[in-house]
Amino acid sequence: MTVRIGLIGAGGMGRAHLARIHDDLSAGEIVAVADINFDAAKSAAEPYGAKAYATSDELLGDPDVDAVLIATFGKVHAPDVIKAIEAGKYVLCEKPLATTAEDCIAIMEAEQRAGKRLVTVGFMRRFDAAYNEMKAALDSGEHGQALMVHNRHRNPSVPENYTSRMAIDDTAIHEFDTMRWLLGEEIVKVRVDRPKSTTHRFDHLIDPIVVVAYTESGVRIDDEVNVNLQWAYSIECELVLETAAVRLGDQERIHIRDSHGNRNAMCQSHIDRFQAAFNREVQEWINAVAEDRHTGSTSWDGYAATCVVDAAVKSHEDGGSPLVDVELIDKPAFYA
Amino acid sequence: MTVRIGLIGAGGMGRAHLARIHDDLSAGEIVAVADINFDAAKSAAEPYGAKAYATSDELLGDPDVDAVLIATFGKVHAPDVIKAIEAGKYVLCEKPLATTAEDCIAIMEAEQRAGKRLVTVGFMRRFDAAYNEMKAALDSGEHGQALMVHNRHRNPSVPENYTSRMAIDDTAIHEFDTMRWLLGEEIVKVRVDRPKSTTHRFDHLIDPIVVVAYTESGVRIDDEVNVNLQWAYSIECELVLETAAVRLGDQERIHIRDSHGNRNAMCQSHIDRFQAAFNREVQEWINAVAEDRHTGSTSWDGYAATCVVDAAVKSHEDGGSPLVDVELIDKPAFYA
Amino acid sequence: MTVRIGLIGAGGMGRAHLARIHDDLSAGEIVAVADINFDAAKSAAEPYGAKAYATSDELLGDPDVDAVLIATFGKVHAPDVIKAIEAGKYVLCEKPLATTAEDCIAIMEAEQRAGKRLVTVGFMRRFDAAYNEMKAALDSGEHGQALMVHNRHRNPSVPENYTSRMAIDDTAIHEFDTMRWLLGEEIVKVRVDRPKSTTHRFDHLIDPIVVVAYTESGVRIDDEVNVNLQWAYSIECELVLETAAVRLGDQERIHIRDSHGNRNAMCQSHIDRFQAAFNREVQEWINAVAEDRHTGSTSWDGYAATCVVDAAVKSHEDGGSPLVDVELIDKPAFYA
Amino acid sequence: MTVRIGLIGAGGMGRAHLARIHDDLSAGEIVAVADINFDAAKSAAEPYGAKAYATSDELLGDPDVDAVLIATFGKVHAPDVIKAIEAGKYVLCEKPLATTAEDCIAIMEAEQRAGKRLVTVGFMRRFDAAYNEMKAALDSGEHGQALMVHNRHRNPSVPENYTSRMAIDDTAIHEFDTMRWLLGEEIVKVRVDRPKSTTHRFDHLIDPIVVVAYTESGVRIDDEVNVNLQWAYSIECELVLETAAVRLGDQERIHIRDSHGNRNAMCQSHIDRFQAAFNREVQEWINAVAEDRHTGSTSWDGYAATCVVDAAVKSHEDGGSPLVDVELIDKPAFYA
Repeated sequence: MTVRIGLIGAGGMGRAHLARIHDDLSAGEIVAVADINFDAAKSAAEPYGAKAYATSDELLGDPDVDAVLIATFGKVHAPDVIKAIEAGKYVLCEKPLATTAEDCIAIMEAEQRAGKRLVTVGFMRRFDAAYNEMKAALDSGEHGQALMVHNRHRNPSVPENYTSRMAIDDTAIHEFDTMRWLLGEEIVKVRVDRPKSTTHRFDHLIDPIVVVAYTESGVRIDDEVNVNLQWAYSIECELVLETAAVRLGDQERIHIRDSHGNRNAMCQSHIDRFQAAFNREVQEWINAVAEDRHTGSTSWDGYAATCVVDAAVKSHEDGGSPLVDVELIDKPAFYA
Repeated sequence: MTVRIGLIGAGGMGRAHLARIHDDLSAGEIVAVADINFDAAKSAAEPYGAKAYATSDELLGDPDVDAVLIATFGKVHAPDVIKAIEAGKYVLCEKPLATTAEDCIAIMEAEQRAGKRLVTVGFMRRFDAAYNEMKAALDSGEHGQALMVHNRHRNPSVPENYTSRMAIDDTAIHEFDTMRWLLGEEIVKVRVDRPKSTTHRFDHLIDPIVVVAYTESGVRIDDEVNVNLQWAYSIECELVLETAAVRLGDQERIHIRDSHGNRNAMCQSHIDRFQAAFNREVQEWINAVAEDRHTGSTSWDGYAATCVVDAAVKSHEDGGSPLVDVELIDKPAFYA
Repeated sequence: MTVRIGLIGAGGMGRAHLARIHDDLSAGEIVAVADINFDAAKSAAEPYGAKAYATSDELLGDPDVDAVLIATFGKVHAPDVIKAIEAGKYVLCEKPLATTAEDCIAIMEAEQRAGKRLVTVGFMRRFDAAYNEMKAALDSGEHGQALMVHNRHRNPSVPENYTSRMAIDDTAIHEFDTMRWLLGEEIVKVRVDRPKSTTHRFDHLIDPIVVVAYTESGVRIDDEVNVNLQWAYSIECELVLETAAVRLGDQERIHIRDSHGNRNAMCQSHIDRFQAAFNREVQEWINAVAEDRHTGSTSWDGYAATCVVDAAVKSHEDGGSPLVDVELIDKPAFYA
Repeated sequence: MTVRIGLIGAGGMGRAHLARIHDDLSAGEIVAVADINFDAAKSAAEPYGAKAYATSDELLGDPDVDAVLIATFGKVHAPDVIKAIEAGKYVLCEKPLATTAEDCIAIMEAEQRAGKRLVTVGFMRRFDAAYNEMKAALDSGEHGQALMVHNRHRNPSVPENYTSRMAIDDTAIHEFDTMRWLLGEEIVKVRVDRPKSTTHRFDHLIDPIVVVAYTESGVRIDDEVNVNLQWAYSIECELVLETAAVRLGDQERIHIRDSHGNRNAMCQSHIDRFQAAFNREVQEWINAVAEDRHTGSTSWDGYAATCVVDAAVKSHEDGGSPLVDVELIDKPAFYA
């Protein structure tokens, strides 16, 4: 069985998923593309013989669409996710699930009414081979408990429309989800520290920042968000256990020694670094849909990440020093 | 269009290709499996709804088979490859193309009669990301000419039926092809050196050996074939250019520091190391077949590798010291 | 000229310096050893033909003593340092210079009365080749300003008498001085974060901690103090500049690949890691004394490190969350 | 006791030893310098208050000279070494001990007549920390026997007066001695292979070459001698054991990540790489002389290295292909 997928959002991320599903993955095809910019929908759909729609409602109502992939802006995710749930369709929604806790709660309520987990949030790092090996090292119990995690989220540069808030809700949100998944517990407190800013940024931006967070059991997490690095896209993570420290490796393919030193090339974009994780995420989602089962992160995961974002933004707006509690509703048994 | 593939040979390699095409790749499906052990053919074919045949002739005559994947033993490749050519079907033939120069020549003659390159030999390293980056570093010209290449082909262990000859015709043949492809020229001389043997081997085996070879332009290649290493599957390659040395990187995913040291896990099998290369090789072949074009290595490449094998075996059987000339026929313009 | 050195304190550190001066260094000799445990003084002095004293006063009054090396406990340093200054003798005082800001101020006053810088504090990392290369990379200006520094101070284990306060005044004090020296500015704020504690510690100890500090210009420093690591002595430092990240290298001498992985041995003690730095520190001090000039860190450096310790201890005792100001007197022109 | 050393040869190596003994080491002083260029002897001696001589005879006859350090050209070593032996003085002779087997034999005969091992040859790698750790890994027996050793001797460049023969007698001789010492057995066969030459060389030079050798027990050694590398001074060695591969580490002090990659600086000269080994070699020699005992390599080691050189030169002059036997006299019991 081939899963017939409807794509909402024909921007860069949506088109990347389109090409991925067509060129690299098995068992799924994009049969419809919706975008409020109808020309964008048409130009994306055409090479694959897919239908184009100007509204997500039309796509969600199309009986040929088995499942929905949402790649629009975060703030407009909620209504489409809820309508997809109400139509009984599986949804893979790019992160964030929604930009407010209220919207996330509304999605969870819809899903509970539907009686079935239908929503997967696009936190692709959960499908990265290196993070999974790190998690296996923790879960083996061989090295004791986790005590700390040191993260770096380093980008070569960001455009002028990237705001200080986005360092948290667009960038650090990846570590928020990854740490919750890796450690298997909630983040309960968060603080934003402000180092000296780089001169290689637009003036309005506070960059870098360091987010410090604690989990329920007391694991301390830090996350350097440093998005005008100039020299690389570099996702680093060191998990400090009681009797070992485990870090993401260099992922190096070749190593050159010459007049510049003993060196390996650094990754330059999230696509280069996480291409295989994106592929595996979408393939596993397609396979799960074909078997009528849920896979990956849940709406609760999307909600919890958004709540950590809210607390971190509050700390950041207060000047960064206070440690802010993450406010979560009681976890519904549905997501246990 | 989905390429309908017939698989000849339902052993380990054939089944790995079957699973790969079904689970990981796009645009191809296995529609028939042939094996002289008909039960093996049936059990391999059944989960995928493919037909099973007891002879390759039946499979090659099946009009539903667009293209053929050959994964039998090397010594029986030639007749099937030739019949596939005569049927006008594209063939992906596992290495070696054939085990004698004569058989390879017969295949090339059949292909020239067909007037079209139909045969691709399964040298999957040509599709490995790391080797491709190494080749790009050479081809860029930035670091001057190649002077030497140091290879290591290290296996954790080999079974008792692995012979001293197989160290060359089954193992080192990978480096022979990879070096020809990387350097873009023929290997013209070869010699086998015999270091002290490891005690971790079956008595009849000479292991390790070091194969030393020279290309037309004088590049010196060495290849340590060391197949009872105990500790890893390790494919290493250092290309020494005039102003740089480029080597395959560690490919490390995670890095652990603990009481055993500052370390990363080593790869344990060729499947772990080359899974992505196998996938890319077969996917590119499927895509090429769909577009009615040839891709990857040619029959000439299969022939040349076999001739290097012959010369190396001769040196090895003479006790290892003499440098033996590789005897090649003139290269047909068809393969230029 | 051979510098005749008097050693005060015949414990482990004192004896290490004794052996170092005799066996590894040029141009200095230990001529007298004082210890309140006179037997310790005698047994240390005898193999080198040095005099033994039961009091530091006797040693400081000995006209054969050109210069003084103090290796007693920190809390008794001040009176001996001041007497040595008053006797006009150069002093190399192990860290900390003194355990209270008041004592440090008294030392600085004595030194200013003497009109000459006589005191060097034993912060040996300033003489480590790797830290010096890092400083050179910063000072070159090639990579822009410093924004952050991430430190790890990891010990295999500590004895039961090691207290939570010592994590700061005995351990983190090394990073406090090293960061001031590296960045060339004062630390002005400091905070202590408490991650989950390791189970591999004595119950009374809070371990690990993370000290977070800011310099005058806003560089953010963090320092993981993690002293029951089990697996290594590991001093790590990453300096994040605007266009580069520079870290201390692995210092690996050999690299082993075997069934435990692709690995290098980790350092197990501060002696192994900093032996060369200790040697260079003491040799440069001997050379400076011989030429009647000051070298290395000053009393001001000892004072400033102690003030950062005081602020960090205050934050730690308050439960770790508040950011505490470091209170420094105005810097005397004498130390400019 | 201070060992009073006479230096013969006031060129670069001699002056480096002079500075080393004065500035870095304990318990030795240079009291006399001889050079056939008397002005060179005077200018070298003067800063240290040493005597200057125009002939080695005068220096060897000086009763103030306890021991002799010879740093002249290899071809004039033998007479001075023999006279020093006859004067009963310990000698540290820079490599090679002598440039012909006959001269080495004459030295051994003189030493046997003297009845005491007086000669140490300046193979400083025996004192390198990394090679010593490699030897300890082998000698531990933990990883089985040695099977192969892969060496690289890579220099940034050589001057026009460096000849093809010097690639063996001046450069590869270091590996010849180091391999004999590491493996604890003689090299019995040797061959020189000629890869394509680099264009970054003077026309008369054959560069690189690869020397292949076998020990008595069959360990295969290769040594890439590549002396116009442009980018680094790089001494590499991988010892392949039955269950591990041990290599010299990167010796990196700092690691930089920036737009040139993830990199560490490479060593640029043998002084940078082996400074600590030179220091330790000379310090251990001084200490041994003070205690009237021999240390380090012997005249036999100097002889054996020269014999391997002779065989390698013969292979090289024959065009490189033949494997040439190393001809050694029976080892005198005196050197057992």
